[in-house]
Amino acid sequence: MAPEKELFPAQRVEAFCGDVLTKAGLSPEFAAIVTESLLCAELRGIQSHGVVRLETYIQRVEAGVMKMSATITTEMDAQAVALLNANNTFGQVAGYQAMKLAIDKARQYGTGVVAVKNSNHFGVAAFYAMMAQKEEMIGCVLTNSSPAMAVYGTKTPLIGTNPIAIAIPAGDHFPIVLDMSTSVVARGKIRYAALTGHGIPLGWARDPEGKPTEDAKIALKGSLEPVGGVKGSALSLIIDLVCGVLTDTILTGGVKTVTDMSGPAMTGHFFSALNVSKFIDMKLFKANVDQVVTNIKGFPPVDGGQIYMPGEIEFNLSKKRMEEGIPLDAEVVQSLNAVASRYGAAPL
Amino acid sequence: MAPEKELFPAQRVEAFCGDVLTKAGLSPEFAAIVTESLLCAELRGIQSHGVVRLETYIQRVEAGVMKMSATITTEMDAQAVALLNANNTFGQVAGYQAMKLAIDKARQYGTGVVAVKNSNHFGVAAFYAMMAQKEEMIGCVLTNSSPAMAVYGTKTPLIGTNPIAIAIPAGDHFPIVLDMSTSVVARGKIRYAALTGHGIPLGWARDPEGKPTEDAKIALKGSLEPVGGVKGSALSLIIDLVCGVLTDTILTGGVKTVTDMSGPAMTGHFFSALNVSKFIDMKLFKANVDQVVTNIKGFPPVDGGQIYMPGEIEFNLSKKRMEEGIPLDAEVVQSLNAVASRYGAAPL
Repeated sequence: MAPEKELFPAQRVEAFCGDVLTKAGLSPEFAAIVTESLLCAELRGIQSHGVVRLETYIQRVEAGVMKMSATITTEMDAQAVALLNANNTFGQVAGYQAMKLAIDKARQYGTGVVAVKNSNHFGVAAFYAMMAQKEEMIGCVLTNSSPAMAVYGTKTPLIGTNPIAIAIPAGDHFPIVLDMSTSVVARGKIRYAALTGHGIPLGWARDPEGKPTEDAKIALKGSLEPVGGVKGSALSLIIDLVCGVLTDTILTGGVKTVTDMSGPAMTGHFFSALNVSKFIDMKLFKANVDQVVTNIKGFPPVDGGQIYMPGEIEFNLSKKRMEEGIPLDAEVVQSLNAVASRYGAAPL
Repeated sequence: MAPEKELFPAQRVEAFCGDVLTKAGLSPEFAAIVTESLLCAELRGIQSHGVVRLETYIQRVEAGVMKMSATITTEMDAQAVALLNANNTFGQVAGYQAMKLAIDKARQYGTGVVAVKNSNHFGVAAFYAMMAQKEEMIGCVLTNSSPAMAVYGTKTPLIGTNPIAIAIPAGDHFPIVLDMSTSVVARGKIRYAALTGHGIPLGWARDPEGKPTEDAKIALKGSLEPVGGVKGSALSLIIDLVCGVLTDTILTGGVKTVTDMSGPAMTGHFFSALNVSKFIDMKLFKANVDQVVTNIKGFPPVDGGQIYMPGEIEFNLSKKRMEEGIPLDAEVVQSLNAVASRYGAAPL
């Protein structure tokens, strides 16, 4: 049986997260950024990066492996590039500042690249890519994550499901927003299959010997399959080298998952913004992106189904959830309220 | 039966291509660039982008749909970004100049992004990414190509197999070089299966109704499968928007394949270089990339096989072919010699 879900108005969830975070010691400005990221995930239907993480983040702080509040420092700032140090505070705070800086740089230099070292889980990658898109730029965001996939040809999980998010402005249509992991599926889907006693399709994961498996429980002991096999493996490794090694944070394989309280997560991120208007008149660009979308939507769909552009399902869902509320598991609400009560915040 | 292949020394192939191109009217400087790209493809084992294309390029010029020689003009040059116009000459010439400019910009500004409009087939994408890597930078290259895949949810081929190439410097190990199409396999593999009367695995292609097919002949009438389904479809579309729309060259779906002589190819490219040494001491970066590679190579392989890093197979093959020669089909050599004789160049 699926867990019971209750609908909560977005504003109520927003106020709750902001209240808990500020009472737990985060500045109102930073609390607003983290809250916006959590809400963005819930609205887009990415529950794994939503309010359920509020508890995890605070647990990390309580365990002494993450800083509630820290100043993001500048390690390097040179024309179109910069390297920020998150100093082990929220990935969202560092990510927001980094993408803002990348956008500023792109305004001046045409493009901006800002990397972040010593960071944490930063929520949904699309959040930052869309910051650039809202400024009429193309945003591209990468982050590394904890070992989940084996490098092609090996069987030991080393590289993360390291996502790529890209956002491109459009005119009347929704912006084009891709936010993809480099694995075929999220680990959560396999965990759910194992919990409910179901098998998994071949091609989702491998057993500890590196062989494809349909057994969810065995898959959890093995590794996730990279998207496109050797291609996704290479993409993930490259993201790891850019986010972990280029930022001098940690070697590939050293990032800790958000629920691993044994030490700092040592996450790294990469943000870039490209100033569209330097290349082409912005109106023409938007009109042409719109025309491409209109052309695609005019094609006959497979099996009479719907044709969705990258990000469209999430935009539709966000609109629906802004109007109707955000569905939350009773269990999640209970956990969140327990955290709130520890810091003297009102329950959800 | 596989076609008969003869080994030709790399220098002989190089001299032949340079001779034919200059006699056909290309400047020695530009001929050297195109030749280097063709040779790079042959050495790396990417025959589809190798010397067989010399004939196609010259046919395009003879058909009046491509310029043998043209000046690459600057449409925009502003700090870290630029837009070049290939004016319908060789994609290799435009690509080489664009990546050189991106590298210069990255030296000054930390990163450089140069896009190219009105271009043609530019050979192997890794060639340009490695130009950046040789300058101790991270290179990233995108290009659009002719319709081959249907956007996810549709059945009409629209987006290309648009490749992504990324090159990252290493120290003692080979550089990390990814050069991947956004399709599961190249169309050539399906064409070969159709020719030899073989089937194709499910997941390579779809029939004209958008249904997965194992029939190579039906697949050729349908569309190639994007890598990772909806993910590869989105990546390819984004590459198309960046290379075609951002450069104001053509809307998605309008690029002509290199063998389509009905008009200019209208290809667009994207080149970026990121200056590693702005972020981290170059020696440390190389040592850490090396350490990651050493760690991966130390893992137990699946089934006792070999573990290859992205690009390693191609580096090994290049070394072997530089020493032993480049294998060419008798049929390809015959065609090339026919072209050579038209321009008074010596045969291969």
